[in-house]
Amino acid sequence: MSSRIFNFSAGPAVLPESVLQEAADNLLSFNSTGIGICEHSHRGKPFMAVAAEAEALCREIAGIPSNYKVLFLQGGASLQFSMIPMNLLTPDKTADYLVTGAWAEKALKDAKAFGQTHVACSSKDANFNYIPQQVSYSPSPHYVHFTSNNTIFGTQFRTEPAGYASSAFLVCDASSDIFSRPIDVSRYGIIYAGAQKNLGPSGVTLVIIRDDLVEAGSSKLPVMLQYRTHAENESMYNTPPTFGIYLMMLVFRWIKAQGGLGAMEARNQAKAGRLYEYLDDSRLFKPTAERSSRSLMNVTFVTGDEATDNAFIKATESNGFSGLKGHRSVGGMRASIYNAFPPEGVDALIQFMKDFEAARS
Amino acid sequence: MSSRIFNFSAGPAVLPESVLQEAADNLLSFNSTGIGICEHSHRGKPFMAVAAEAEALCREIAGIPSNYKVLFLQGGASLQFSMIPMNLLTPDKTADYLVTGAWAEKALKDAKAFGQTHVACSSKDANFNYIPQQVSYSPSPHYVHFTSNNTIFGTQFRTEPAGYASSAFLVCDASSDIFSRPIDVSRYGIIYAGAQKNLGPSGVTLVIIRDDLVEAGSSKLPVMLQYRTHAENESMYNTPPTFGIYLMMLVFRWIKAQGGLGAMEARNQAKAGRLYEYLDDSRLFKPTAERSSRSLMNVTFVTGDEATDNAFIKATESNGFSGLKGHRSVGGMRASIYNAFPPEGVDALIQFMKDFEAARS
Repeated sequence: MSSRIFNFSAGPAVLPESVLQEAADNLLSFNSTGIGICEHSHRGKPFMAVAAEAEALCREIAGIPSNYKVLFLQGGASLQFSMIPMNLLTPDKTADYLVTGAWAEKALKDAKAFGQTHVACSSKDANFNYIPQQVSYSPSPHYVHFTSNNTIFGTQFRTEPAGYASSAFLVCDASSDIFSRPIDVSRYGIIYAGAQKNLGPSGVTLVIIRDDLVEAGSSKLPVMLQYRTHAENESMYNTPPTFGIYLMMLVFRWIKAQGGLGAMEARNQAKAGRLYEYLDDSRLFKPTAERSSRSLMNVTFVTGDEATDNAFIKATESNGFSGLKGHRSVGGMRASIYNAFPPEGVDALIQFMKDFEAARS
Repeated sequence: MSSRIFNFSAGPAVLPESVLQEAADNLLSFNSTGIGICEHSHRGKPFMAVAAEAEALCREIAGIPSNYKVLFLQGGASLQFSMIPMNLLTPDKTADYLVTGAWAEKALKDAKAFGQTHVACSSKDANFNYIPQQVSYSPSPHYVHFTSNNTIFGTQFRTEPAGYASSAFLVCDASSDIFSRPIDVSRYGIIYAGAQKNLGPSGVTLVIIRDDLVEAGSSKLPVMLQYRTHAENESMYNTPPTFGIYLMMLVFRWIKAQGGLGAMEARNQAKAGRLYEYLDDSRLFKPTAERSSRSLMNVTFVTGDEATDNAFIKATESNGFSGLKGHRSVGGMRASIYNAFPPEGVDALIQFMKDFEAARS
């Protein structure tokens, strides 16, 4: 086993070591077939079994009702930003967007091409460092779109948005916190997530979509951009990203072995809790997100002095920590501690920060 | 090293063993960084170097002129079927399509939504077992689309289509024979290919596109479906399929080490040549593609008797050969022998066929 360091990357991000080891063992020959996992036909029995298990485990872990489809697509959340309104909006319909970060802004911008949009709230006034409590929905939105976790700004919805007209349904970009806690899928019309934070490698996008919405899009849309194409063909209208689906299956197995989403939530609360607790106590480091909006996935913090931030980041990099530099639009530091990030890495970081702080005081 | 068998899969397909071994060695720690190749941020130096090398090698191997962009996209050739006409066609423009197989038919169908189309030739009359010599172009097509190799039917263009108006440019779906022989990129406007046959794993699509065509699409199109988005951001507008790009880079290194595209062509001619030579001599097996249209990538053949075909396929599967069953629309057998398929596998198959034939006579 090669020596691994603590990888705080915001995405692509750390994956469970056992998952990577199993993948490595199957690259030249998957399950002793004599053919590597990337080399198997997507129509052959070995890969079909992988895809079936990936879907079954996804359904089991998240408790996905039978009237939802589970799709493995390409193009990332960014393609969903257009595909969702392309299939669901029309010029006479309005979609409400909760603008809590840069990705929510992009989703909103892309939706404008297909129908009416309404900004139900925005935290741009404070560089997105909070999740607004005041939300003004339009009278009867077709759907309400939100970004459950804001990777760049370190904020996260504690619970689903509420208070919108009962005819509307939720659409959620859950790219950076999917399966980090239990989820009541029945409250959503669509949940989508790029895999590269909590689920697997980049290049595969999980879409959980209610059956009626699968059929909602015009059949005149480009065939690859209709949900029904992928639903009717069980995500194999064309060649799917097989390695990504395989890694997702292994990650789902790992989540199940950890105890499922409840256990993931407890683990994530403990990890982030220790880090925020230290940050609240620290005289050097300060968390940037408002307390009630803090993300369990991305912990953003600053010292208040750019030179000190840079000195700290440099020090982490020469001591076995990677990826702690914050996004340029926030500055400072960001510790991305997704599901697979090991608790001992958080403890090691806290100790390192304590030592760094002590050496300066 | 696990025991590998001869994998004749049409795609995803066999990859060079050395490439897979290197990928396996880097899944837990890429280049001794302590972070696996799937876990590296696409914005970090280690992966940026991979992406840069992938592009540089691609340009070097194929001799791509400087006025072309090299893009690594998602969605497969199937998304290009729509993205190309979406960006290049308008209702007043006509695109000519050479219909030489099922994938060409799909490309044609998807183009109809965006402009005028003209079927310049079709070999559907003979279940696509040949590449038409007679092509009737429209007076001034905007572009001429062809599928350089027809995976299902085992046919391949020997040279580019010619004889169309000089104002037009070629657009080629080269998914199943890209980089199997030298290519004069300057004759094309766009060359695109899903990676999963000759370049890498499924889930990444290579698009080589002339600069003026990058800018041709309306800026009102969904941002992810504009070529300029990906060109301006060097294929990193959103998170790219990093593992796929990494494997492609390794495959490009492998092609270069083999001697480049000229060497690949010689190797492919030798492999396919031996197999066709045996098929022409055989009294049991007959090739299905017309002689002048035979593919060097996918060799299709039948015995003329379905029961014998099935007995043969079953026999191959219990003797270390996989994936020889033909596509259902052709029946019989198909030996996909892409770049990475080892010459000794072709010889082993020929010997096995000879033995099978001898045992029956």
